[in-house]
Amino acid sequence: MNLLQKTINSISELDKNYMDKTKKRLDSLFKPTGSLGKLEDICIQLSGIYKNINFDISKKALIAFAADHGVYEEGIAPDPQILTKLQIPNFTKGLNGVGTLATFANVKVIAVDVGINCNEKLEGVLDYKIRKGTSNMTKGPAMTRDEAIKSLEIGIKISQNLIKDGYNILGIGEMGIGNTTATSAIISVFGNFDPIEVTGMGSGLNSKGIFKKANVIKKAIKINNPDKNDAIDVLSKVGGFEIGAMAGVILGASANRVPVVIDGFISYASALIAYNLNKLTKEYMIPSHFSKEIASDKALQLLGLEPMLYMNMRLGEGSGAVLAFNIIESANFMYKNMITREEAVMSIKKSLP
Amino acid sequence: MNLLQKTINSISELDKNYMDKTKKRLDSLFKPTGSLGKLEDICIQLSGIYKNINFDISKKALIAFAADHGVYEEGIAPDPQILTKLQIPNFTKGLNGVGTLATFANVKVIAVDVGINCNEKLEGVLDYKIRKGTSNMTKGPAMTRDEAIKSLEIGIKISQNLIKDGYNILGIGEMGIGNTTATSAIISVFGNFDPIEVTGMGSGLNSKGIFKKANVIKKAIKINNPDKNDAIDVLSKVGGFEIGAMAGVILGASANRVPVVIDGFISYASALIAYNLNKLTKEYMIPSHFSKEIASDKALQLLGLEPMLYMNMRLGEGSGAVLAFNIIESANFMYKNMITREEAVMSIKKSLP
Repeated sequence: MNLLQKTINSISELDKNYMDKTKKRLDSLFKPTGSLGKLEDICIQLSGIYKNINFDISKKALIAFAADHGVYEEGIAPDPQILTKLQIPNFTKGLNGVGTLATFANVKVIAVDVGINCNEKLEGVLDYKIRKGTSNMTKGPAMTRDEAIKSLEIGIKISQNLIKDGYNILGIGEMGIGNTTATSAIISVFGNFDPIEVTGMGSGLNSKGIFKKANVIKKAIKINNPDKNDAIDVLSKVGGFEIGAMAGVILGASANRVPVVIDGFISYASALIAYNLNKLTKEYMIPSHFSKEIASDKALQLLGLEPMLYMNMRLGEGSGAVLAFNIIESANFMYKNMITREEAVMSIKKSLP
Repeated sequence: MNLLQKTINSISELDKNYMDKTKKRLDSLFKPTGSLGKLEDICIQLSGIYKNINFDISKKALIAFAADHGVYEEGIAPDPQILTKLQIPNFTKGLNGVGTLATFANVKVIAVDVGINCNEKLEGVLDYKIRKGTSNMTKGPAMTRDEAIKSLEIGIKISQNLIKDGYNILGIGEMGIGNTTATSAIISVFGNFDPIEVTGMGSGLNSKGIFKKANVIKKAIKINNPDKNDAIDVLSKVGGFEIGAMAGVILGASANRVPVVIDGFISYASALIAYNLNKLTKEYMIPSHFSKEIASDKALQLLGLEPMLYMNMRLGEGSGAVLAFNIIESANFMYKNMITREEAVMSIKKSLP
């Protein structure tokens, strides 16, 4: 059995026993029951993941994968393809969107080349290049089935390594000019949506550009006929290497009982791939922000996830995931340090003469 | 001229010149224009407030006011009134919701008694008690007009003192059993809503309790007939001391060109009071979270504010405001440290052989 199938098979449910214990403690705190909403939900989820009511989430990593897209040649993105290569070294230097936000949030960023269209090694970027970009999906599958599995297994391996190194919470991010096109295609397939319903501006298309992009997606789906009941088929035909690798991180984190923070639009596609490989992965996902890219609502509905942050952000990179780490840590700190109703009453009794 | 009127008169517009400069810098950064959404909006707003493109927001304070409500005797709250007094000392000890979250976010919490129903001095709580709770608003005005002005001026004075001490960003919070009733009444008046449309569960009423609470509000509005064009009249007739004091902080911060982070439902009422005293205060407000209490959407629409955090929280205390501080600091850190497009190109040219 290969690593992918082994990983998929080893994902199990959250531990309801620990979740109940955590709920009980939360309900004993000196506040109206449930009044801290998602902060409480996060604590319950984490205890179910870690099988522990006293969990540690201080060692945080964001894994960002970069790849190029053959469909770029159809003119679906306003930016030059070379930006993928130019931007990714900034991820680990604290110089770009996710890099600055990660420095502030004390999150380690790991950048990985899984398919950038360049020959050189990039500074500070792990080299797991599958190929120099996917094929043009309007002319055939974006990648072979073996390549799709390889992308997933890269994500699994890297997440396993980080977990071995003591990282106890992971986030996912990406860089890849053209990857909103692949994402919209994936959402269109899983949700049976007409591409025009799920195609947005990406990094800055006008309405004419969006219309063109939707037609490109339509063509890609028609020519490839991806099978929505086979997530690897969908990934290989209309996906991207970075989308597969992020889905792999979700699988790897879930199999190793570590939570994974989902970023924005592109990561919703990865979440859909992972979810359709094993529904239980959803229990390990923590949604972060609601991307401004159109169809975010549709993708999140397919996943049944409700983000915490509504920031009108559409940068990607992992920037939204990194913003959410602090909220998750706040939840844990609150849960560990708030006084219980009983303790409050005791301390009052003590202070009476 | 009294302190209140003087403060209202001294609030001026944000400085568009500095906002333009900040927008220009944000647009020069190595990312799609506008792609960091509200993180960018916050930087632009802060520069317009501080008249500076390099602002400091590291010294953060949350001012929480506590008071009791005469309308409590109508049976509108499921909790005992004594909770106001019991909970407020935990605010500055890092023991309750806002206290734990503030410790984590490195936010100083100031707790102020503006009208708790008790005789004793409370540990760690500033004593600005106006009276031991408002009057029952179903039988007449909750407070006199002079008391309403006094509550506003307490907020102004405390915010002024903190700003003199070097605090460069403020947040507001509260504690007061029964204060969702006063808040729903205020929203009902300013928005011409039937009380049943804007009355929610508070800390945990069932539907029968909510219906009763809405009728209490209806009665209070009928007997007092507050004038929605006179915010002090609204505050005095159906408000609360803590609601007035929080509105005072908004006025004081605005007059001193310091941003003020709005919390949840109760603070929306304070924001409405401040906004109706001077529309410019809105430019100094940073909304934090969308409260789960019903009518949050209506209140925020009246204010034209859109929160960042959707956490299903309904605790109050300032817990949502404190959560938002980190996001605001993240925005500032990103803005100060991200590489520009030009710097990115330069560094690439340098690395070429």
